[in-house]
Amino acid sequence: MQEKYEIKKNNKIKQLKTKANYDKKVVHAILDAGLVAHIAFNQDQGPIVVPMLYGREKDTIFLHGA
Amino acid sequence: MQEKYEIKKNNKIKQLKTKANYDKKVVHAILDAGLVAHIAFNQDQGPIVVPMLYGREKDTIFLHGA
Repeated sequence: MQEKYEIKKNNKIKQLKTKANYDKKVVHAILDAGLVAHIAFNQDQGPIVVPMLYGREKDTIFLHGA
Repeated sequence: MQEKYEIKKNNKIKQLKTKANYDKKVVHAILDAGLVAHIAFNQDQGPIVVPMLYGREKDTIFLHGA
């Protein structure tokens, strides 16, 4: 497993970018400390946000979508 | 000011709908107890979520977008 996430258009930090960190250990520690993610979906009337429970295994995020 | 919000496609509660409440007094009390809203926007790569401070005045929500 690589040690850092590749910086792409959809994960590049723009706000306070001097504090950005792409090390997997740091990103995983932040994810593992959390419980709920706010996920956006597109629907007919525009984007909506749904708070969802999540868990991480390696580089995969699992969302609870019942 | 009307006492209830009109039920429309984009505000109709679907989950646990028996608990839904469209009374303005109830909706305003919930909004006034909160501080942060998770707002979805569409960008080129898809919808994103931004947590934003908010405030309410009558039927208007003000978002802090600095």
